[in-house]
Amino acid sequence: MNASSSILIVGSMAFDDLQLPSVTATNVVGGSATYSAFAASVFAPVRVVAVVGDDFPAATLDAMRARGIDTNGVEQASGRTFRWAGRYDADLVGRTTLDTQLNVFASFQPKIPADYRATPLVLLGNIHPALQIDVLNQVERPRLVVADTMNFWIQGEPKILAEMLRRVDLLVINDEEARLLSGIHNIRRAADDVRKRGPRSVIIKRGEHGALLFDEEGIFAAPAYPLHEVIDPTGAGDCFAGGLLGYLATVPEVTPLSMRRAMVHATATASFCVEAVGTERVAKIGSSEVKDRVAGICKLYDFGAHTM
Amino acid sequence: MNASSSILIVGSMAFDDLQLPSVTATNVVGGSATYSAFAASVFAPVRVVAVVGDDFPAATLDAMRARGIDTNGVEQASGRTFRWAGRYDADLVGRTTLDTQLNVFASFQPKIPADYRATPLVLLGNIHPALQIDVLNQVERPRLVVADTMNFWIQGEPKILAEMLRRVDLLVINDEEARLLSGIHNIRRAADDVRKRGPRSVIIKRGEHGALLFDEEGIFAAPAYPLHEVIDPTGAGDCFAGGLLGYLATVPEVTPLSMRRAMVHATATASFCVEAVGTERVAKIGSSEVKDRVAGICKLYDFGAHTM
Repeated sequence: MNASSSILIVGSMAFDDLQLPSVTATNVVGGSATYSAFAASVFAPVRVVAVVGDDFPAATLDAMRARGIDTNGVEQASGRTFRWAGRYDADLVGRTTLDTQLNVFASFQPKIPADYRATPLVLLGNIHPALQIDVLNQVERPRLVVADTMNFWIQGEPKILAEMLRRVDLLVINDEEARLLSGIHNIRRAADDVRKRGPRSVIIKRGEHGALLFDEEGIFAAPAYPLHEVIDPTGAGDCFAGGLLGYLATVPEVTPLSMRRAMVHATATASFCVEAVGTERVAKIGSSEVKDRVAGICKLYDFGAHTM
Repeated sequence: MNASSSILIVGSMAFDDLQLPSVTATNVVGGSATYSAFAASVFAPVRVVAVVGDDFPAATLDAMRARGIDTNGVEQASGRTFRWAGRYDADLVGRTTLDTQLNVFASFQPKIPADYRATPLVLLGNIHPALQIDVLNQVERPRLVVADTMNFWIQGEPKILAEMLRRVDLLVINDEEARLLSGIHNIRRAADDVRKRGPRSVIIKRGEHGALLFDEEGIFAAPAYPLHEVIDPTGAGDCFAGGLLGYLATVPEVTPLSMRRAMVHATATASFCVEAVGTERVAKIGSSEVKDRVAGICKLYDFGAHTM
């Protein structure tokens, strides 16, 4: 795959303390931007805007740069890095937040470096919608703007969120967020409602069940790749978004068909993420591994439709 | 679609009292054999073995016969028909059994009429595994034996269930049943375990998330068709199995590819079932409607894989 575009990712970089069914791990490097950047870097050059404290490991930033991720937009602030602690249920579906410390993230003001501003593909990770808008005010006519959000902003900042939605092309959220945002339980009608609020396309993530794309062509379903073992679902959604934009960076145009194929590549990328704790696996995906996993997913979806 | 085979369905015929989020309905004709038979009848001739009481509506049996369903194997016993009452949660996923009255079903001994015994495709609905075995002892070398079961038999009759599993080709169960049967949470490993117990193929149903097929070719994922409105999920799994066998009756051979295509047709058939209360919708599906819904599902799954 030859990238024709680069990707700008704005989001969080963090430490996570994870109580997983199989292991407890502390000070795990995480954050939406970290996961998405590693995932996208398999496909294309990535530029990251985020903030870390002075406790953030230089080795992670080195590892990112070694993957073709430009970290000049990562601000090093004085203080501690954003920190999240959570406990997963035995089924790896439910999870409980045990602690959130915003630290340097509390005063994060994304500053898009001049040489990032014309990046054609923009991923607005799950940060305050006012900051997402602030990013959009700094960039120059991106070809595609993709945003994530969460319950916290949907409930706490509905007005600013509504403004953000009017300015993005694609919203990537999970099913519960779609229901909360729309006030509609039925997932198809919830997606239709969200599309009326601005984004011409919506992807609804459903964890182990995969994801659904709703756009002008209709609906596309991308089931998740069933793995023999799932270790840590943290960051899977961010890796999905990163893989999605990564694939789109390799095609000349964002069309309904390329978006569907991007969903397949996003599914592959996210499937690696959950195989190990934190970014351990996603930070090391090789492009031939992605190719093999995509082939596996094509088999998973294949019923010889074109000869039926 | 031209059927080359007929289908034998053994299961329950019942009255259901349903407390649904949108409506409460009593004395709704249901039962696994009823749902499966209506679903399969869209594709092929169906033969039913079940028992009803003297309160069962002749009109339903007439409607079945009008759809090409042979009801000579439906025993009319003196007493009341099997009855189930349940309440669905607002999300239509969780449900609580409020009452079960076996009635004439308690002493059901399936008797396969002589002219049914060579039926090539056999569906053993969710009845006591000893009765499922009893049916297999009466039929002559069917081409394919498909069975359903449930938690009640998995926990209560593990030995007889194990014997039944050794004699079926395909087990169709839901994810929780697969986990209970195997003792394994991970769905891929659970399916591998179930396949080692006898059936060379396993289909794991996941409700609104669709179904997964595990066989010698690997895994096939068939996401459910996202509907604008779901009224009543009762019988959807039975309609899935009925549609699956119905499609298989139209192909000369059961192969991994025809099984995948059967999953697509099963998904289409089940999607009609949930659009109305009870068998109201599935009893009236036209074959052109199925064709249209299958086309919609092909679009739902389509990312132009063969030109990628």
